[in-house]
Amino acid sequence: MTQTHNSPRIDLNADLGESYGTYRIGDDAAMLDIVTSANVACGFHAGDALTLQRTCAAAAERGVVIGAHVGYNHLAGFGRWAIDMPSPELTADVLYQLGALDGLCRVAGTKIRYVKPHGALYNTAAVDERQAEAVVDAVLAYDKDLVLMGLAGSVLVATAQAAGLRTVQEAFADRAYTPAGQLVSRREPGALLHDAPTVAARMVRLVTERSIEAVDGTDVALVADSICTHGDSPGAVDLARAVKAALVEAGVTIAPFVDEDQR
Amino acid sequence: MTQTHNSPRIDLNADLGESYGTYRIGDDAAMLDIVTSANVACGFHAGDALTLQRTCAAAAERGVVIGAHVGYNHLAGFGRWAIDMPSPELTADVLYQLGALDGLCRVAGTKIRYVKPHGALYNTAAVDERQAEAVVDAVLAYDKDLVLMGLAGSVLVATAQAAGLRTVQEAFADRAYTPAGQLVSRREPGALLHDAPTVAARMVRLVTERSIEAVDGTDVALVADSICTHGDSPGAVDLARAVKAALVEAGVTIAPFVDEDQR
Amino acid sequence: MTQTHNSPRIDLNADLGESYGTYRIGDDAAMLDIVTSANVACGFHAGDALTLQRTCAAAAERGVVIGAHVGYNHLAGFGRWAIDMPSPELTADVLYQLGALDGLCRVAGTKIRYVKPHGALYNTAAVDERQAEAVVDAVLAYDKDLVLMGLAGSVLVATAQAAGLRTVQEAFADRAYTPAGQLVSRREPGALLHDAPTVAARMVRLVTERSIEAVDGTDVALVADSICTHGDSPGAVDLARAVKAALVEAGVTIAPFVDEDQR
Amino acid sequence: MTQTHNSPRIDLNADLGESYGTYRIGDDAAMLDIVTSANVACGFHAGDALTLQRTCAAAAERGVVIGAHVGYNHLAGFGRWAIDMPSPELTADVLYQLGALDGLCRVAGTKIRYVKPHGALYNTAAVDERQAEAVVDAVLAYDKDLVLMGLAGSVLVATAQAAGLRTVQEAFADRAYTPAGQLVSRREPGALLHDAPTVAARMVRLVTERSIEAVDGTDVALVADSICTHGDSPGAVDLARAVKAALVEAGVTIAPFVDEDQR
Repeated sequence: MTQTHNSPRIDLNADLGESYGTYRIGDDAAMLDIVTSANVACGFHAGDALTLQRTCAAAAERGVVIGAHVGYNHLAGFGRWAIDMPSPELTADVLYQLGALDGLCRVAGTKIRYVKPHGALYNTAAVDERQAEAVVDAVLAYDKDLVLMGLAGSVLVATAQAAGLRTVQEAFADRAYTPAGQLVSRREPGALLHDAPTVAARMVRLVTERSIEAVDGTDVALVADSICTHGDSPGAVDLARAVKAALVEAGVTIAPFVDEDQR
Repeated sequence: MTQTHNSPRIDLNADLGESYGTYRIGDDAAMLDIVTSANVACGFHAGDALTLQRTCAAAAERGVVIGAHVGYNHLAGFGRWAIDMPSPELTADVLYQLGALDGLCRVAGTKIRYVKPHGALYNTAAVDERQAEAVVDAVLAYDKDLVLMGLAGSVLVATAQAAGLRTVQEAFADRAYTPAGQLVSRREPGALLHDAPTVAARMVRLVTERSIEAVDGTDVALVADSICTHGDSPGAVDLARAVKAALVEAGVTIAPFVDEDQR
Repeated sequence: MTQTHNSPRIDLNADLGESYGTYRIGDDAAMLDIVTSANVACGFHAGDALTLQRTCAAAAERGVVIGAHVGYNHLAGFGRWAIDMPSPELTADVLYQLGALDGLCRVAGTKIRYVKPHGALYNTAAVDERQAEAVVDAVLAYDKDLVLMGLAGSVLVATAQAAGLRTVQEAFADRAYTPAGQLVSRREPGALLHDAPTVAARMVRLVTERSIEAVDGTDVALVADSICTHGDSPGAVDLARAVKAALVEAGVTIAPFVDEDQR
Repeated sequence: MTQTHNSPRIDLNADLGESYGTYRIGDDAAMLDIVTSANVACGFHAGDALTLQRTCAAAAERGVVIGAHVGYNHLAGFGRWAIDMPSPELTADVLYQLGALDGLCRVAGTKIRYVKPHGALYNTAAVDERQAEAVVDAVLAYDKDLVLMGLAGSVLVATAQAAGLRTVQEAFADRAYTPAGQLVSRREPGALLHDAPTVAARMVRLVTERSIEAVDGTDVALVADSICTHGDSPGAVDLARAVKAALVEAGVTIAPFVDEDQR
């Protein structure tokens, strides 16, 4: 998705709608006041129907663009454990989730505009061609105009592009990067960044200079259309707020990657 | 839904798409060759996403009208145990199911045309105003043009009509009726009818004379827009086939209650 | 369970082990330092297996007696929505939960000592004879020496006693009582008490005088073997701590209702 | 498990108790009249509590030894899709299942005597050390006297033996073998054998000569303590019956691998 703007511009996204019945997770209202795109859970890895309905309504009210955060059908693992499921079942599961969330968006007077796989499905489809294709097949069958959001340089993004889907590549505010521009594994020390000013400064540089400092101190080129600020960690709201404030201060326009007339 | 036709006309419906993963239930392909309306499960009381996708595709291929067979979110009880859940949660659960099934219909080149609650939700909403309203609220919010299929004379049908929804009332081919025109409870002896010729003859009389013989031998007036032939009992296919053959022989037109131009 | 002691004595219980995967609920470690009996979830209304294993281990380590907090198999409603399920299925579900939790206790070097239905099952079995019997049947079949904890004066307690089970009746620290000694419905204003000193004083009086002030200001006689301090509300830990401190100060012995030699 | 007997002896096992609510799978009663060991589902990959309770009772009545057929917590995939879950969660899930089934056995007057992982857990633990250890840890923690049943030559069996558990190795009646004595993958042609007389003759030779013909026509040495006859395919009962009849005719003693005095 090539964009030409006079001033630098970026989208901010977060994972939302992940509460389930009595179980509450994240501060959705606060995050919706910060981000421009909401990755809303679809009831498979998280999110009961009422939570999803309310999250879609709250996002629509604020003009936040809604994406379907599709995941494996496994609440016990919160969609974070890879499941080696057959392609037809995976495609059908993604389709089911797209329709379910889109229906809730419809009631809120809007519609889903993009798809972002969640957790282990995100990671698996980033490297596994078969699962990437199963996800892309679902998106194509449901609506060719949906944008696919994925990890920069992933198999999923390549598969989606080859299939003719528009893609959006995201960077992660709270994650360290390797000199090759990949995410440092969560299992490595220093993978997660918590210091708000540091994170904010990194994101300003990413947007304005298309560069980020890797774990070894070298600079790595990185182009992103959207910054993921997550949603369920305790400090997520403060971090997202700091990133946004720094970007605005630096003259960056915070706006959805979906253009006004397409919304 | 008043209909004026030269020859008597009736819709035949059945419950379909109720398999779940390795678990198979009913002979969907055979039933789809008989009925004109398919009550397709939505994944809550039954039906995995792939089964639902394939059922919608098979129905669309045959021109069978698709309705959302929404149920309680409880696979363990197959949606047959009443759940005393709050209204907002119930409305959201129905909305979620409508969107999910409609999305699968969309992929199959069609859309859901009606809603029929399943099992314990059907029975509860037939007598409980609160749950009936929760269901109707979901249908209204999702699409005011959807038809609501329910038990003749039920609170659900009355609630739907009061809210401005079109309704379709159904009779049950394999069930005995009380002199008051109600279903004999399944717990009573003789509630279920299994003899195909008897059942077929009863349905012909229902359609052509708007009358049915009650358990006590008296005649009771009964008007139905659709005949439910069920779907998951072993003899269901044969019974449905016998009913259809007898109706056709009697000059009855078997057709969906949704008009051609609305499909 | 008649008990003769020189000084007044009471058991303190709380609902624990209700987290599920990524979803955290309650501060189990803090509550385990306060109570003498732990109602541990069994995986049906709440509680993943690892949470239950760790909760049993933590309780055993502190010498806290473990009870099986059995519930309806419905995570979406957290077991708080009544389900009208058949008796054989309900009995089997309770049996399954008893064995599962007892197995985790076994690994922790202990065993379940009592059974307390959770949420809607607690409330339904308090008034519905059929469900009460289904629960009691499971307890009897599993282990006749298990104690049944229930609401004072409930059908469940009566059914259990008639079947020869030992029963323990509990009072609720944070609930208002009617002049008849029943709980004021949560839907009524003033049903829930939040002021720690007030609650603590009420509980001291309950234990030392076997009396409590009802919502209308009158005194009502109430005998309880255990005080439920709940577990998942934000102020639960502070309230429980205040109740315990006041009781100790008043010379009340805080001890499990299960005698040492039976543990 | 070294056994010295005058006549050749073998155990027959099958997967049972896999029905779930309205969904029926397999003919458990017929299989229980044939086999000597029942791998009973534990409610995670299949099996509702009532089905499990009845299966345990029916097995106990016939003197059939009961094993816990533990699986991934994923009914949608019937436990046949590998899940990359963390070890503590996997160990706890296995523990939970062991206790649950053992509790139902207790009510039936018996207890679980062995553990056999199901489906994808069986296959994953056969090659993946981490998951094999997680399973073995659960068995050790629950009861060191439980026998572990696994694939001959698998990582799981080796891990269990190294941990001091007794193991039982099984052969599959309806599967083809490679010249190396491994199962031919289900994805290969000819992996599944359906001809009852052929299968029966192969099993007689396996027991009496400790040899089986591989897919390439060569003979391969194979020692098995038990023959798995499966349970859920349509011809399973007939195949199992044919295998048993041929073995009896050949003078083989059909008996559980657990000795009388240990039952």
